[in-house]
Amino acid sequence: MDIKQYIREITHNAKQASRKLAVSNADTKNTVLRQMSEHIIECAGVLKAANSEDLEAGRSAGLSGAMLDRLELTDRRIEGMAESLRSIAALKDPVGGVIDGWTLPNGLQLRKVRVPLGVVCIIYESRPDVTADAAALCLKSGNAVILRGGKEAIRSNMAIYRLLRNCLENSELPAACVQLIETIDRTAVPPLLTAEDSVDVVIPRGGKGLIKKVMETATVPVVKHYDGVCHTYVDAGCNIDTALKICENAKCQRPGTCNAMETLLVSEEIAGQFLPKACKLFVKRGVELRGCSRTLEILPDVKKAEPSDWRTEYLDMILSVRVVRDVGEAIEHINAYGSGHSDAIVTGNLANAENFQAGVDSAAVYVNSSTRFTDGGQFGLGAEIGISTNKLHARGPMALEELTTYKWLINGNGQVRD
Amino acid sequence: MDIKQYIREITHNAKQASRKLAVSNADTKNTVLRQMSEHIIECAGVLKAANSEDLEAGRSAGLSGAMLDRLELTDRRIEGMAESLRSIAALKDPVGGVIDGWTLPNGLQLRKVRVPLGVVCIIYESRPDVTADAAALCLKSGNAVILRGGKEAIRSNMAIYRLLRNCLENSELPAACVQLIETIDRTAVPPLLTAEDSVDVVIPRGGKGLIKKVMETATVPVVKHYDGVCHTYVDAGCNIDTALKICENAKCQRPGTCNAMETLLVSEEIAGQFLPKACKLFVKRGVELRGCSRTLEILPDVKKAEPSDWRTEYLDMILSVRVVRDVGEAIEHINAYGSGHSDAIVTGNLANAENFQAGVDSAAVYVNSSTRFTDGGQFGLGAEIGISTNKLHARGPMALEELTTYKWLINGNGQVRD
Repeated sequence: MDIKQYIREITHNAKQASRKLAVSNADTKNTVLRQMSEHIIECAGVLKAANSEDLEAGRSAGLSGAMLDRLELTDRRIEGMAESLRSIAALKDPVGGVIDGWTLPNGLQLRKVRVPLGVVCIIYESRPDVTADAAALCLKSGNAVILRGGKEAIRSNMAIYRLLRNCLENSELPAACVQLIETIDRTAVPPLLTAEDSVDVVIPRGGKGLIKKVMETATVPVVKHYDGVCHTYVDAGCNIDTALKICENAKCQRPGTCNAMETLLVSEEIAGQFLPKACKLFVKRGVELRGCSRTLEILPDVKKAEPSDWRTEYLDMILSVRVVRDVGEAIEHINAYGSGHSDAIVTGNLANAENFQAGVDSAAVYVNSSTRFTDGGQFGLGAEIGISTNKLHARGPMALEELTTYKWLINGNGQVRD
Repeated sequence: MDIKQYIREITHNAKQASRKLAVSNADTKNTVLRQMSEHIIECAGVLKAANSEDLEAGRSAGLSGAMLDRLELTDRRIEGMAESLRSIAALKDPVGGVIDGWTLPNGLQLRKVRVPLGVVCIIYESRPDVTADAAALCLKSGNAVILRGGKEAIRSNMAIYRLLRNCLENSELPAACVQLIETIDRTAVPPLLTAEDSVDVVIPRGGKGLIKKVMETATVPVVKHYDGVCHTYVDAGCNIDTALKICENAKCQRPGTCNAMETLLVSEEIAGQFLPKACKLFVKRGVELRGCSRTLEILPDVKKAEPSDWRTEYLDMILSVRVVRDVGEAIEHINAYGSGHSDAIVTGNLANAENFQAGVDSAAVYVNSSTRFTDGGQFGLGAEIGISTNKLHARGPMALEELTTYKWLINGNGQVRD
């Protein structure tokens, strides 16, 4: 098979399908989503059989325990996939929403109306449940989707895809609304990323290496879901118990997520009081600390942080710690070393809270709460396709509305321009 | 001078300046904009002297009359620049606008607030008045701007830039809020387009070649202002006089603009009646027609259209004409050959109007009016930096709001995630 020709067919079929899908109503889309959900439960055995082949291949290839865990489709995860499709079906359809509208002096009536993006390409790594979830979010928002999963999960992804496709083939919607790249050949990716005529956006989900590669190759617009080097700044005069509770939650509640804290910043005024307590807590929780030289003056047993630590997303029970002069230096540190994801201040000082929220250039800026809340579900936006670290189009949780664009509809009765 | 080092300094300074500018209030920005406007009028002589050098060099280099015209800074154009700055100062500041907000069940208060993008890089071709206009729109929306103009206008651009810079140097704002690349060396562009750490968006304005090159090189997000292959579809049973008036305006009122009609589509039911009248009108106005074979059956003297005509943005008194079966075939033609800019239907049929607006995948879709209205000023959005043919972030007129992003501000009193 000529791989370029294969991708050309996929992208062409997606564009054709997207035209029909864009004008399909919510009932039609939701019916298919509910059928997909049921079909996944019915065919759990088929999914597990395909998945066990992936797991076996993964073990032979020497995948780490963590990767094998991400790859595995347990009964609970299969039920989770089905439940996720049902809940996406129950969400409000974003398509057709009137964002704004007015009548011009010449009588022209303008409406700015939400419409699907068209064709969305999602490139992701090992977790096979992304296949169902991403397909459902795109379908719900009226977008045809092209899925490119990781090679470790190819058998699981293909099994899930066949189920979704079966449901589409028995529906009013074109089957090509959802397509999976059914090869692990790497040469399939560049033609996808440069198919400007057919693909409207590429969303890479995965490690930094994957995202960097996509950005370098793509001419199609990219909404990136980059890393989260998230900070909590503990300000002078704040409530120490609140600060400890927020820092513990931000670091330990689920350290492998992008909104977990990676760096703790502490005001020099409160460091002598706060850091010994924080250190005791973190050591008890099994967190390794890496401190700046001023941290080490207070906590001499802590390991010294390397310059690279300030830019590192550990995704693990490790925390870098720096003593700063004040909120101004905290903001400078975050803007210099952070990734623009989620950052928090713990303070009782109104001006410092306001300066922090104004000055920190991140998607989500918190006062007196844990950074762990940056999530479409937690924000009340419904299911999300990821957390965008883009500034354009979508910033922070990317839910159904962020999978749409708008068009201007203008109705007149013969108006021409002077 | 090491050009990479030069660009690194420019982008670094822009990022630093953007931090201060982002938190400057509207009064501060508007004061500088009004000073810039006055300073342009005071220094009109300096601008014209620099411009005459560009014009002389352009004539020696054999630039076309149209290009020399675009390059020239007349008194009227200088007044226009100054007036444009004054009117931008008078517009509402988009920064700080609360787009949405609510309180979560756990008491966290969320606000989605409009903030500047950060650093905007604008790459443009011959017209020097873009220098002042683009700088003012970016400043007003709180963005530091890096300007890269065409080599033909370098002396004019530098003269305008020095005036703007003088005003910034005498203000509370950092001078590096506005920077111009002061070299025509082409190797300056790639490092700008890949400065992901400092540049938040690149906006190319100019010909297709420029935009294609930017898209290929950039790793920074691009909001493209591509071509406008705009259509008017004349439906069966419509009011012929209205159709003639709309078509004449869309083609002839200013044919060199991106929202002018390039292709006329006519229903086969009305073609025999409409086309002879349209042809008479267009020939009188000096428009060259290029028709499909069915058009030629009705208008045997018209030149035959080549396949490439359907994709061509003439920007000139040329019009391609095609007879189509019905509104469905018109939509298919537009989605296949158009550029997603502005398209219109002239009809009296409600279902056809609705199908056309739903089915045409363009930034602006008109019923019974001229496509020439696609413009920030005409839409009532204020001054625009261009017309985006992106689907992401900004679609259609890109005004002040589209030069901003948002961030989530979350205020709590100790909330942590379960």
